[in-house]
Amino acid sequence: MKHVLAIDIGGTKLAVGVVREDGTQLSRGRTPTDVPNGPDAAVERLIALCRQTVADAGLSLGDIALIGIGCGGPLDPRAGVTLNPPNLPGWEDFPLVKRVQEGLGRTAHLDNDANAAVLGEHRFGAGRGFAHLVYFTVSTGVGGGVVLDDRLYAGAHGNAAELGHLQVSYDGWPCACGGRGCLEAFCSGTNIARRAQQTASNRLIALAGGKERITTEHVLAAVREHDAPAMKVWADTVEVLSAGVASAINAFNPQRVIIGGGVTAAGPLLFEPLARLSLARAMKPLAAGVDVVPAQLGDQVGVMGAAAVALSKI
Amino acid sequence: MKHVLAIDIGGTKLAVGVVREDGTQLSRGRTPTDVPNGPDAAVERLIALCRQTVADAGLSLGDIALIGIGCGGPLDPRAGVTLNPPNLPGWEDFPLVKRVQEGLGRTAHLDNDANAAVLGEHRFGAGRGFAHLVYFTVSTGVGGGVVLDDRLYAGAHGNAAELGHLQVSYDGWPCACGGRGCLEAFCSGTNIARRAQQTASNRLIALAGGKERITTEHVLAAVREHDAPAMKVWADTVEVLSAGVASAINAFNPQRVIIGGGVTAAGPLLFEPLARLSLARAMKPLAAGVDVVPAQLGDQVGVMGAAAVALSKI
Repeated sequence: MKHVLAIDIGGTKLAVGVVREDGTQLSRGRTPTDVPNGPDAAVERLIALCRQTVADAGLSLGDIALIGIGCGGPLDPRAGVTLNPPNLPGWEDFPLVKRVQEGLGRTAHLDNDANAAVLGEHRFGAGRGFAHLVYFTVSTGVGGGVVLDDRLYAGAHGNAAELGHLQVSYDGWPCACGGRGCLEAFCSGTNIARRAQQTASNRLIALAGGKERITTEHVLAAVREHDAPAMKVWADTVEVLSAGVASAINAFNPQRVIIGGGVTAAGPLLFEPLARLSLARAMKPLAAGVDVVPAQLGDQVGVMGAAAVALSKI
Repeated sequence: MKHVLAIDIGGTKLAVGVVREDGTQLSRGRTPTDVPNGPDAAVERLIALCRQTVADAGLSLGDIALIGIGCGGPLDPRAGVTLNPPNLPGWEDFPLVKRVQEGLGRTAHLDNDANAAVLGEHRFGAGRGFAHLVYFTVSTGVGGGVVLDDRLYAGAHGNAAELGHLQVSYDGWPCACGGRGCLEAFCSGTNIARRAQQTASNRLIALAGGKERITTEHVLAAVREHDAPAMKVWADTVEVLSAGVASAINAFNPQRVIIGGGVTAAGPLLFEPLARLSLARAMKPLAAGVDVVPAQLGDQVGVMGAAAVALSKI
């Protein structure tokens, strides 16, 4: 069975794993990204970590069929270059694939973390057995990925499925992307917290230990205590998200919509109303053939997604 | 060179053409759909019209490589059956492909009119030379079609690209589909007229000869005279549409967005602001690689789209 080396580049850590094509992780490792020291230093430590992780698996680099890399976008997957990832300041136009290939002597493929995640869920998680998937990740930001006919939907320039920028309020809130009414600018963890801080109840402030310390976790804790302002923030979040999920169902006609990312820790508080509202809003023939489910890979999605990027090229 | 027989099933007329694979129409014909008499009578006349049109081209049915049919949805393209097309009452679950094949002895393929249109524009119109297209038709309703890697994007069940049901106002106007804030329920010709009737100026009423007679054409005539209420109706239309176009650009990463349908008669009143607003709203890397242009096939889109459905199967 083939083995791939999976690399997950995040704003706080670099995670690496050797993964067999059946999904078994033979070894893993991690090191801080240390963004202030820049990409050259990070790649140097990454290369050393990769060599160690391959050795820990009882393999040599010659046993690695391909390397897969997942990284926060925007990036150019075909050129193998990061563009201006907001979580990696200093990594502008950085030739990540070239540097990894030079360091390890194996061919590498790069994709953004949301595309890697949908490939990971498709091969190893909630999307197994489904040829047509839409994936939303709702975390610090909101990202997306689409699998069509068992292949990643890349679009003309590799930038498709920016589902956090479906615009569900044409005259609504501004988004940093330049658009208006984007899902991300309302439903991301950052923006759930921002909205909660603006309308916080005394209970929410007490739970968080200060208005400016409120996070999505505090909102959910207050919802469980039936705190009305928190319930309004959460209901608005789910309603807005459902308009995006319904739009994606109508646009892509998937068999399954998978929701991943930190916000899924809400569990049934998220999935019960989101699935119900999304399917009620979608067109009936399309709603009849789809479900809305949680991602399964959890905190392994970064490494398993990167592994799936590599395996999708074999 | 191969020849196909193209059939365009509309709510008012059945149009037929013999089309060579280079796009030359050798012959054409049409007959009323006569919806009140039902699909059986319509298909009987359609078969006779097809035979006549093939003869007019100087061909026999044996010279026809395939038959392509475009028809208003919803329909099941794989089963070849119309489901419950709102413009064809009485055609519920009608086995259109089977009946056409029985009548003519040639293999037929069916798709909805918007999918047929994007295939037609891709092969013969504004989409020539582009592998990745998004098409909106803005007419009585709002439909969509997507070409990816030079092939129609069909989705899991052949129902993808219902772009008239991108939801751009999460808490907004209700749509007949069950959703809220759908493009179609605001921007279709029917709904432009409805909104104009609600806020009509005296000038608009005079142009139309009565409030309830106002159509999109009257709105545009009043806009050209700088009638403020009509300008507001039109500006809202373009703004809402731009949120849908931007969402589609962010979702599909196309090289070109093509706008067809009756509303495109507005010309620069539509395309100048729509292109500008859509590209301003879309994410910058995606906006940089796309343009927003008028369809080119005009009133031939039905027949040429149906021809492209057939040619896409050869």
